[in-house]
Amino acid sequence: MPTAKAFSASNATSPLAAASIPRREVGPTDVAFEIQYCGVCHSDLHTARNEWAAWPTVYPCVPGHEIVGKVTAVGAKVSKYKIGDRVAVGCMVDSCGACAGCREGLEQYCDAGKTVFTYNSADPHGTAPVTYGGYSDRIVVDEKFVLRVPENLDLAGVAPLLCAGITLYSPLKHWGAGPGKKVGIVGLGGLGHMGVKFAHAFGAETVLFTTSPSKVADGKRLGADQVVVSKDADQMKQHERSFDLIVNTVAVSHNLDPFLSLLKRDGTLVLVGAPEHPHPSPAVFQLLFARRSLAGSGIGGIPETQEMLDYCSEKGIVSDIELIPIQQINEAYTRMAKGDVKYRFVIDMKTLNS
Amino acid sequence: MPTAKAFSASNATSPLAAASIPRREVGPTDVAFEIQYCGVCHSDLHTARNEWAAWPTVYPCVPGHEIVGKVTAVGAKVSKYKIGDRVAVGCMVDSCGACAGCREGLEQYCDAGKTVFTYNSADPHGTAPVTYGGYSDRIVVDEKFVLRVPENLDLAGVAPLLCAGITLYSPLKHWGAGPGKKVGIVGLGGLGHMGVKFAHAFGAETVLFTTSPSKVADGKRLGADQVVVSKDADQMKQHERSFDLIVNTVAVSHNLDPFLSLLKRDGTLVLVGAPEHPHPSPAVFQLLFARRSLAGSGIGGIPETQEMLDYCSEKGIVSDIELIPIQQINEAYTRMAKGDVKYRFVIDMKTLNS
Repeated sequence: MPTAKAFSASNATSPLAAASIPRREVGPTDVAFEIQYCGVCHSDLHTARNEWAAWPTVYPCVPGHEIVGKVTAVGAKVSKYKIGDRVAVGCMVDSCGACAGCREGLEQYCDAGKTVFTYNSADPHGTAPVTYGGYSDRIVVDEKFVLRVPENLDLAGVAPLLCAGITLYSPLKHWGAGPGKKVGIVGLGGLGHMGVKFAHAFGAETVLFTTSPSKVADGKRLGADQVVVSKDADQMKQHERSFDLIVNTVAVSHNLDPFLSLLKRDGTLVLVGAPEHPHPSPAVFQLLFARRSLAGSGIGGIPETQEMLDYCSEKGIVSDIELIPIQQINEAYTRMAKGDVKYRFVIDMKTLNS
Repeated sequence: MPTAKAFSASNATSPLAAASIPRREVGPTDVAFEIQYCGVCHSDLHTARNEWAAWPTVYPCVPGHEIVGKVTAVGAKVSKYKIGDRVAVGCMVDSCGACAGCREGLEQYCDAGKTVFTYNSADPHGTAPVTYGGYSDRIVVDEKFVLRVPENLDLAGVAPLLCAGITLYSPLKHWGAGPGKKVGIVGLGGLGHMGVKFAHAFGAETVLFTTSPSKVADGKRLGADQVVVSKDADQMKQHERSFDLIVNTVAVSHNLDPFLSLLKRDGTLVLVGAPEHPHPSPAVFQLLFARRSLAGSGIGGIPETQEMLDYCSEKGIVSDIELIPIQQINEAYTRMAKGDVKYRFVIDMKTLNS
């Protein structure tokens, strides 16, 4: 079995450290590529530390699902990619392919529940007990789950589009963010900053909600027409019943009612993260009295992820990042847990060889 | 000031009893009518007993918002109705008329918050401190809030359509219940039995959820293709990820997650009642993993209520009722609170004179 260099966690409390992991041979429909950059997502931290009761971590654990690089080999039946192409892989590497969800290109909602996530999912190829992610120098993925990266975009800034980007792009598209619509983004982190960029690019009146007055200027720089400090009840009240859509990126338990009350009739509050402890129960009358909805959305399908990358190429959109060597990943986790990053850490994977 | 006979509550604990109440003179755009029947809604009981903290009751309180009867006088500018017409009034008697909601015929969601409810709303005419409802021999209402009752329907059975009926008709229409859709109705009471009738009439595959095995046969008689005893986890599991829409009529606090898990991708669970104590907080991952929505809906607008009455005329749909003399209203409240009614009490208002 071929191997790859990686950084892995060997249990919930040890720091991530260099390791060797197996990668499968390149099959007929596989694309192998050298990983040049990998974004650092909160999910990486939660999984490395086994913080999700519903999805226990199998060790060793190699996180990373915002992966970009250059094709080094393709299987005999691969038609979409050739050696040297700039490619990417996001949160999924396989799914059933046969259900309604997969056939519609919504593999993240596979009706058979057979979405294979990029790390810590049972590995259908049996290369290892679970899939290993992008904190590694190379990866082998079926071409159906490989994306093409437009040439004009900064490759390191593209990496976070594969999770943070698509997680906001998809609900903004699905719920119709665009001209004439007022759209809110709650939270200015890795996800939120992409939400502000996309909502603005789509032509929506874009309002950022943040608890930090210190983020007002940056929110406007990123594209927000207005920034509301959500702890300020007076500021919030000025926006009552005015939003078509609010996408809430905050995955820490908090009261949703102040945001529900800002929705117009038929408006939707979309959650894109699940908190470790439940949010306080939303007030039903907030839903009843204006036919509002509280919804959830998870990443995006493969066709939509490609659509997003092409859209970013056209608009020149990438993530704002801090590039780090992989040796600083444990420090990056500590900073990320405090929200101290503008707005996504990306690992420069050539440092794996240094 | 003209008066009317009524039954009213003089405080939160006294039984309802006969009383005389003021009714305004018939204004230029008003319709006056003799009330022949009035349905008995749970809201009547909650209001009579001052059980809603958010909406305190002003006494004396005259409940009743499922009102049908015969026109006795019309104002000079009234064009839609003439003396002798069969008419109805539901939960609303006025609204701002100018906002987007009102202009779209969604007066229940008046953006100005100026919906005037049929009872216990501040009375814009100043006839009394609050509006007085349909437990009375006559009422005066602006023609914009008066509905026409088709001649072919049993008038007593029509009364509950004005609240219970439209409360189910509206969300079933809004969320597209029809052929090829699988629709659930939770709870077989006044609202639920109308939901089963409408979902079936619209051509949807209709499933009733009840906690009472004793209601299975009646659910099928009313039009359900299947009846699921929701306390039976095995029965529930057979319907996982299969519903397009579930309308939940149960306004007592309960766990919503078992119903959310039955929704397909992009499915919606609609609440049409607000519990006195909050539901347990819904699990966010149930929303995220299938882009599901939890929504609310309140009654329906005036144009849609007329549409519903005309639809009922075409399909021969009315409520299943138990007709009572008004002298039995207190006993009816006791039975209704226990769910002991199939499926709506309706007051025969001529008993007010006996």
